Parts: sequence; C-alpha cells; structure tokens
Amino acid sequence: MSLVEQEVHEQPEVLARLLAEGRPLVQDAAARIRATAPRFVVIAARGSSDNAARYAQYLLGAHNQLTVALATPSLFTFYQRPPALAGSLVVGISQSGHSPDIVAVIAEGRRQGALTLALTNDLASPLARAAELVVPLLAGQERAIAATKTYTAQLFVLAMLSAALRDDPTFWDDLARLPHAVAQTLVLNRELPASVPLLASARHLAVIGRGFNYATAFEIALKLKEVCQLLAEPYSSADFRHGPIALIEPDFPVVIVAPSGAVFADVTALVEELRARRATLAIVSDSEMLLAAADVALPLPSGVPEWLSPLVAVVPGQLLALALARARGLDPDHPRGLQKVTRTL
Amino acid sequence: MSLVEQEVHEQPEVLARLLAEGRPLVQDAAARIRATAPRFVVIAARGSSDNAARYAQYLLGAHNQLTVALATPSLFTFYQRPPALAGSLVVGISQSGHSPDIVAVIAEGRRQGALTLALTNDLASPLARAAELVVPLLAGQERAIAATKTYTAQLFVLAMLSAALRDDPTFWDDLARLPHAVAQTLVLNRELPASVPLLASARHLAVIGRGFNYATAFEIALKLKEVCQLLAEPYSSADFRHGPIALIEPDFPVVIVAPSGAVFADVTALVEELRARRATLAIVSDSEMLLAAADVALPLPSGVPEWLSPLVAVVPGQLLALALARARGLDPDHPRGLQKVTRTL
Repeated sequence: MSLVEQEVHEQPEVLARLLAEGRPLVQDAAARIRATAPRFVVIAARGSSDNAARYAQYLLGAHNQLTVALATPSLFTFYQRPPALAGSLVVGISQSGHSPDIVAVIAEGRRQGALTLALTNDLASPLARAAELVVPLLAGQERAIAATKTYTAQLFVLAMLSAALRDDPTFWDDLARLPHAVAQTLVLNRELPASVPLLASARHLAVIGRGFNYATAFEIALKLKEVCQLLAEPYSSADFRHGPIALIEPDFPVVIVAPSGAVFADVTALVEELRARRATLAIVSDSEMLLAAADVALPLPSGVPEWLSPLVAVVPGQLLALALARARGLDPDHPRGLQKVTRTL
Repeated sequence: MSLVEQEVHEQPEVLARLLAEGRPLVQDAAARIRATAPRFVVIAARGSSDNAARYAQYLLGAHNQLTVALATPSLFTFYQRPPALAGSLVVGISQSGHSPDIVAVIAEGRRQGALTLALTNDLASPLARAAELVVPLLAGQERAIAATKTYTAQLFVLAMLSAALRDDPTFWDDLARLPHAVAQTLVLNRELPASVPLLASARHLAVIGRGFNYATAFEIALKLKEVCQLLAEPYSSADFRHGPIALIEPDFPVVIVAPSGAVFADVTALVEELRARRATLAIVSDSEMLLAAADVALPLPSGVPEWLSPLVAVVPGQLLALALARARGLDPDHPRGLQKVTRTL
C-alpha cells in the first residue's frame, strides 16, 4: 500500500482525534477571536492549504458573517507593500509551517496589531512561532508528498473553529458524526466503478464544484495533477459558464462535485448541459438520481450536512487520483518534481 | 478582420478616451471613497472582469494599502447568507452589468450600508442602477464575445482610481503614457514569431504570472480557452511550485508573463527550472535576455512601470490567441457554447 493510500485511510482516525483532543484548543482560539471581533479575515496559504482557505471563505462567510480575503503574499515579500491589516484576523494555514511567504504574512499582521492564527501540523515551525494563536492539526507525520489527511484535518479545524465562534451545540453534533461519515465514504468507494478506465487515458479534465465545495473541486484537481500528472482545472459552475465551457467537446472528461445542498440545483443544471454536449462525467454525490446519470459514479453517504460535505466529498477524489495513478503506471508517493516542504517567497 | 481583432486594435483609442473623458468621473468616485475610508474592499466579478479584480487586489494593496477580497457570490444568491460588509467598499465589475449574481452582491452591500461602486460598459444596466457610484468603461460596444478592449478598460479605470486615491501626479504621468505603450505593443507583435505553430498543436498549456501580472496569466489563459479551445491553466510562479509543476514534461507548453519589476527574478528562476525540464516556453517580456531564451518571444515595449504592465502584457496574449485560433481553423468571433452576456446566479 502506498503512503498516500495509508494516509487517506487514516483520515477518520485523525478527525476523531481532533474532536477528542483539539476541541479545547479551538475553543480557546475562538474565545480570543470573539473578544477581538475582527472586521474581516485574511488567510495566507499555498497548495492544498489554499484550498482549505477557500472552504473557510464560504464557511466563515455563511456561518459567521465574516468576509474572508485570500492573501496576496507577494505584496508582503517581493513588493514589500503589505495592505492594512489592523482590525482583521490574519490566518496562516500550512502543513509544514515552513513556507517563508506564509510566515511573512502572519509576521506582518502581528506587526500591524492584527490577531494572528496559525493552523499547522508542526508546532515548532516558523509559522507556529510567528502567530499569536496556534491550533495544531494533530494529523501525525504526513509522509506522502501529496497532502490528504492534513487537508481534511485543516477543513475540520476550520469547521470546529466556526462552530466554536457560533457556540451552537447542533453544529458540534454534526461535527461528532463526521469521522464516521468519512469512514463510510471510504467503504462506499472501496471498489471504484469498472468505468474508471474511461478517465485513465485522459490528458486533461475539468473539475467542478460550487459554494462550500468550490474548495473540493480545487483539491481534487490538485491531487489529479500531483499524483496522476493530469492537467485538471477546477471551476465553479458559474465561472465555468463565463468562458471555459467553450472547451467542452464530446468525451471531454469532467469531474462534478455535487452533494445535496443549496447549490445542488445549479450544479445539476450544468450536468444536464454537459450531458447534452456528451462530456464524460464522473460525479461525486449522495443523489441516486445524479449518480445514475454518471459515467463514473462516486457515491457519498447520505445525511452529511452541506457545510461539512467537503470533508467527505474530497475522499472519492483522493481515491480516484490513486486509481488513475495506478492505471497510468505512476508511483503516487513520488510526484514528479515535488518535495514535501515547498519554500516559496 | 475578425471582430476580436478589430477590438484588440481599438484598445489604445479606448484608453486615450478614458484618460480624456473618464478622469473627472474617477476623481469624483475617489473623493467619495476617501471620505468613507473603507476598511477593506470586496469585488464581485466573473470571467475577464474577475481577472480585472485580481489586478485590483495587487494594485489597491500595493498603492493604497487596501485589503481586497474577491466576493463569493453564491453566499449572496443560493445560500442567502451574505457576510458582513459594513465599513467596506463593495465593487462590481461587469462589461454588460447584467449578471444577477454580481448585482446581488452590490445590492446587499448597499443594503448593509457599505459604499458601492460599479465599473461597467452599460450605464443603463442593472449593475449600474444598483450601485451608488458608477464609472463607465467608455469602450464603445464590444461586439466580440471574448472580452478584450473592455478588459483593458477595466484595468485602466482601476489604475486611474488607484492614482486618484493617492492623488500623486507622477502616477498620472505614467497613466498618460500608457495608450501609446499599448499601441507600441501592437506594433511590436504585428508579426508573431515563426515559432508560433509550436503551440498550435497543443491541447493544453500553463500560463504563469505573478504579482501585478497574476491577473494577466488568468486573462491570457481565458482567451486561449475561449478563442482557441485550448485547456490553458493559469498559475502564480509560487502556486505552480506547490504541486502543479509535477505536470511538466519535455515539450509541455508554458506561457510566461515576465515584465521587469519586483517579481521578475522569481519568475525568471522558474523559467530556468522549466528550461531544465525542456518545456516549450512562450515568454511575454521587455527583457532581451529572457526573450532570447524563449521558444516563442512576445516582446513588450520598455519603460512601462510594473504597476501598469498588465495593460501591455495582456496584448501579446490576445494576439497569440487570435493566431492560434487561425492556425487551428477556429472562428474567434464564435467561441463554442458562449453568448456575449452570461447570466449566472
């Protein structure tokens, strides 16, 4: 079993550990954030962590009424012209905590008097040392280069933080059921459909999600790039209609992330348009109807609330990336040209 | 001559008109913004307009110390859970001014008491009517489906707005020279290099820019998708190193946007890495050295300050998209599956 595969299967255990051991740390951070009452949030992150930041945009917006900006690190490093951050919460998300550009954003936020928070798997990292508040990911060492368990751990910490900021017990009930839902998703997708080879010969594909699962589209696309060397480009269903839909021709492969929820009808409408153009569709959903219309059906367990669905919806994408790597004769533990820790400015 | 080509060549004239007729309107808007002293900026936009919003993130950050968030329209439409916008400046950018999701963000901003600003080519549009402040693009009717002159008009209005907020005459001197620099760029690239066919058979490529020209990478990629049906994915040089670089194999085509400036050394370092992996490189630059290292050299005039370089750097990308469409037997005026006005929620 590859390291990536092992770590994909560790995810329910990591989330259960976060729930058991991480909650007081998250609640302390939430208390400090509530006391500061930030006007807006700025998040600095790269790669998979940046996809977790995309989830935070929707989550903190919908549940905590916070406007979230994704940071522009080059303003802090190359240009040395950082924007004003006073009155904001500045968050750095990084598995390793070592990328200098992410540390620079946090350090500048702190210098300007903003409240700073690091989410990292390494409490001894420069990022953890730079931030005032730190929440660990408790994911254990991630040995594979492609992030899997640390990505879902980041989403889960953000979800716990959002719940703690609301202080609403029903959210914690939802969170408590999540590790089991992720385990169910792994079981449901243990055998990927026999139609997966339809995608194995693709050189490129589009991945579409919206709202909370905009992040999922980005993360599945990133796994397909890293692990399968597939040029997979992520879009929201709305952005896709504003130009990129011109790419679609018969047999063009598209992965659709469409769990139940407020944007389901919008994404389903796009599925119908893509069907009419005879695209090849891999669909991640808990909807029997939608799965029946898929060329490659990737099922989700039912009953997961939309705000937590990104934690289950990414899992079939991770498994799909592994299956396609195998079909393409690639070693998922050694993506071409990547190291575990990437240091950028 | 195709409509797109005509409109690409109208750009110097549109920018000169904005400078002559738009300045008082921009200065009025800037005076209102200064009086309100927004804590942060939220921009709602789709397609090319969203790429103009990306430019605004760097421009308003570097020159006006403003943190800019790109809006998440589905929170305003499908989820009906908009974040708090009080104390912010909410900007809608749209050529047509007709996309309901963009209008919804502006309307909600106004409802919450934020200052609202529309940048649109249609003063009678729902977007113009929804916003408190409106600056017209003065681009004349854009008949081609793929946006070109309205994109550079949006960048120019944002650049004028940034200069008006600073009220620094040297910025206006830079702006005054820009229409001529765009005209020079059209002349310099009148004959694209004989090596362009190297890219014509590509099915996909990557487009890389950073800082101010992160937006340019996105916009060139969008033109290549719309007009050439090429799967072109945009990246910052930093994000590219955090995963997607795994895609690069010999002859993988990459368009690099690298005008002189603060991020030039970073982008150049990536060019060297890509050279070592034997990627095929099309380079947009004013650096003789970098152009000499390119498989497809796309020159820029010298002397354009970095903050305005996105207005010239996009032009060779527009011309490249037209040339590749021609080489691929496609009609650039009729991108597959697109209409001029896209209405999304």
